[in-house]
Amino acid sequence: MSSRASWLVSLLLLVVWTAIGADTSPPKALTMAGVLAASQPADWRPLDPENTLYLELASGRVVIELAPNFAPQHVANVKALAREHYYDGLAIVRSQDNYVVQLADPNAEKPELARKIQKGKRTLPPEFERALDPKLPFTRLPDGDVYAPEVGFSAAFPVARDPKTGKMWLTHCYGMVGAGRDAPADSGGGTELYVVIGQAPRHLDRNVTLLGRVIQGMELLSALPRGTGAMGFYERTEQRVPLKAVRVAADVPAAERSSLEVMRTDTTTFQDLVESRRNRREDWFHFQAGHIELCNVPMPVRPVTPQPPH
Amino acid sequence: MSSRASWLVSLLLLVVWTAIGADTSPPKALTMAGVLAASQPADWRPLDPENTLYLELASGRVVIELAPNFAPQHVANVKALAREHYYDGLAIVRSQDNYVVQLADPNAEKPELARKIQKGKRTLPPEFERALDPKLPFTRLPDGDVYAPEVGFSAAFPVARDPKTGKMWLTHCYGMVGAGRDAPADSGGGTELYVVIGQAPRHLDRNVTLLGRVIQGMELLSALPRGTGAMGFYERTEQRVPLKAVRVAADVPAAERSSLEVMRTDTTTFQDLVESRRNRREDWFHFQAGHIELCNVPMPVRPVTPQPPH
Repeated sequence: MSSRASWLVSLLLLVVWTAIGADTSPPKALTMAGVLAASQPADWRPLDPENTLYLELASGRVVIELAPNFAPQHVANVKALAREHYYDGLAIVRSQDNYVVQLADPNAEKPELARKIQKGKRTLPPEFERALDPKLPFTRLPDGDVYAPEVGFSAAFPVARDPKTGKMWLTHCYGMVGAGRDAPADSGGGTELYVVIGQAPRHLDRNVTLLGRVIQGMELLSALPRGTGAMGFYERTEQRVPLKAVRVAADVPAAERSSLEVMRTDTTTFQDLVESRRNRREDWFHFQAGHIELCNVPMPVRPVTPQPPH
Repeated sequence: MSSRASWLVSLLLLVVWTAIGADTSPPKALTMAGVLAASQPADWRPLDPENTLYLELASGRVVIELAPNFAPQHVANVKALAREHYYDGLAIVRSQDNYVVQLADPNAEKPELARKIQKGKRTLPPEFERALDPKLPFTRLPDGDVYAPEVGFSAAFPVARDPKTGKMWLTHCYGMVGAGRDAPADSGGGTELYVVIGQAPRHLDRNVTLLGRVIQGMELLSALPRGTGAMGFYERTEQRVPLKAVRVAADVPAAERSSLEVMRTDTTTFQDLVESRRNRREDWFHFQAGHIELCNVPMPVRPVTPQPPH
């Protein structure tokens, strides 16, 4: 064989090897701690301040990443409402065990007392699902789903897709944020927001507009005392949890922002993470499930790491 | 046709009709409220005081139904420990968001201070799964499961089965109660108990012995402040939640018992209930999921209805 032919064969072998490696090499047998420790700066992305919402409670800050790819009108409206300080002084009025907490205007039903809206909108057409766009990032999970043909992640968001209907939608996992509504589909808009605090109520998928995900501070919501009224509404005014303020992070001075980065989900590192949770390698585990459900995949978050100077 | 033949044909038709009715009639299109309203006394069963455990907290009582069919040794041991008042004065020492709360002896690691055991056992062989006994009640759900070949209910307990391995096991749904353990499989026994308070951690199935289910009082556990230590352990003594007492209901005077009945799961009423949750008929819903996941099936509980005198 000529040296040129030999070189070509080597190159072809390399290409084939790389292709096989990319397609069929088993994921590394790592724990989640191992995956996190081995992750590189490129495996993380900072939150975009323009699409991050802060709920400021007396107990601390809840950080929500907004999902303009899935609910563009609702996200724009929630930001508009936050920017006109619509939410400031409203309250968490509902905490239903194993279901949701909900913030709202306690006087919403009293026209003379209800908070006025300046530039935002009270209601919007529903954004329960959207056209399946193959250009939107989607890392599919391997183990199927009881509710949808395909599930996976688009950035930090749990997503379901149905190729037959050509639709995709955000799913009701723990920490997902939605726009409460009354019976008509177009009666929501973001003036009332709920957060899932229990077993994923997937029957709500495609029934309500989801618009974001709590990235930090879930325990400030999930551990609130449960309301004793119907559907977990607080029965007494003093039980409500006041919202000091709701702000778009971009409007908060940089020094006061929660500087967080979230694991990217379009990487082999994320696939390693999923595998580390499908088959737990920690010594404590005697049986490996070999499967994982959409809402059981953790979403790693960490403070932004200061970069060394170049 | 003789009258006798005619009678036989009628009888056969009746049998065939009944069989068809039982096998193929679509479930009634009812809401859960409708199913509950239409339920008959025979659709309910009272809790067995001998297999019911009360956790008495300052905030109230947590009622647990024990599962001797699945963890006979652990159930017997927890009852023995309760009967020697082993748990009284111990505490909830851990509350990890979206995961579990756990009760334990805060001094378990200090031999001179640790609570002594009289008749119970500190550790037991694991009861992570048991032989699949087709004689045990099992109402299978129709929509599959990400983690197991078959799932459904045996009495109030969510159960998975694998005909290939010939095993069945309790699953980690919200409110399920298990025996905490260290790394060795046989290091648990019931001196430490945990309760699931978040998205079902199904990767724990077959890794820990589950022994019961909270039937009432979940909100006394799920809304506890989260611990700030590793794995949600409380870092300060005063954060722990003392156990006033843990009692087998049979040992409590009848007048002081929580007199509850639970919906039977081996009935057509329960199948109607499941259907009412697979396809929500309430006006609020615009989309019907057509599926339900094991841990999303509610388990109706109500006070025992006084029976009219015969």
